[in-house]
Amino acid sequence: MIGRLNHVAIAVPDLEAACAQYAGPLGAKVGAPQDLPEHGVTVVFIELPNTKIELLYPLGDASPIASFLEKSPAGGMHHICYEVPDILKARDQLISDGARVLGDGSAKIGAHGNPVLFLHPKDFQGCLIELEQV
Amino acid sequence: MIGRLNHVAIAVPDLEAACAQYAGPLGAKVGAPQDLPEHGVTVVFIELPNTKIELLYPLGDASPIASFLEKSPAGGMHHICYEVPDILKARDQLISDGARVLGDGSAKIGAHGNPVLFLHPKDFQGCLIELEQV
Repeated sequence: MIGRLNHVAIAVPDLEAACAQYAGPLGAKVGAPQDLPEHGVTVVFIELPNTKIELLYPLGDASPIASFLEKSPAGGMHHICYEVPDILKARDQLISDGARVLGDGSAKIGAHGNPVLFLHPKDFQGCLIELEQV
Repeated sequence: MIGRLNHVAIAVPDLEAACAQYAGPLGAKVGAPQDLPEHGVTVVFIELPNTKIELLYPLGDASPIASFLEKSPAGGMHHICYEVPDILKARDQLISDGARVLGDGSAKIGAHGNPVLFLHPKDFQGCLIELEQV
């Protein structure tokens, strides 16, 4: 079912410093910040030859990243995103296998303009999984 | 400096269950378990079209994964591995930029038979980074 690893997301307490570190010492290609108010985040994508890193920074008053950073002030790995060809088919199959989808269970539009949804980390070894239809 | 994302590692409290989940509901290609006593882990690689997921399970009495699972009993994302062409050059450059290398600073042989080392998560947005010479 799952295809490519689309990105790994890292929540960061200082977006500018994180970008400078990936562009400088780590020598990677760092994109421009994008605000996603409906997800409560500002994101920056780092392009690696085979996949992407997504830096996540809180945006707005009810950002899920703000609560993550309260628990882990230094930042940390936040989620992993797998591509699927058909997100509703994938969702229904996973629900029938006993997995839980976060929120109201509907797919939302993500940072790349594609439908995305998140699976409950307790059902997947403590790992928050995003599915993106690509 | 950094090249491909070689793998994302997830520490799991039940290796068999995690393998069954990735092979079954998530429909991915799951490899055979490998014991790496010098790293205190049993690993299973999951092959995605563009990279790998590494499931980590404690092995032996002093496993770093055992202490991780004590703090996060459900499991969780443990580290991310970037490929570099020359690990000693990368290490020396990062140290000169102020980053810290875990352990005695020397590269060890990792799961793929290549030299690896780990960077201090506090220097990289709370994210444990493995560098692998490929």
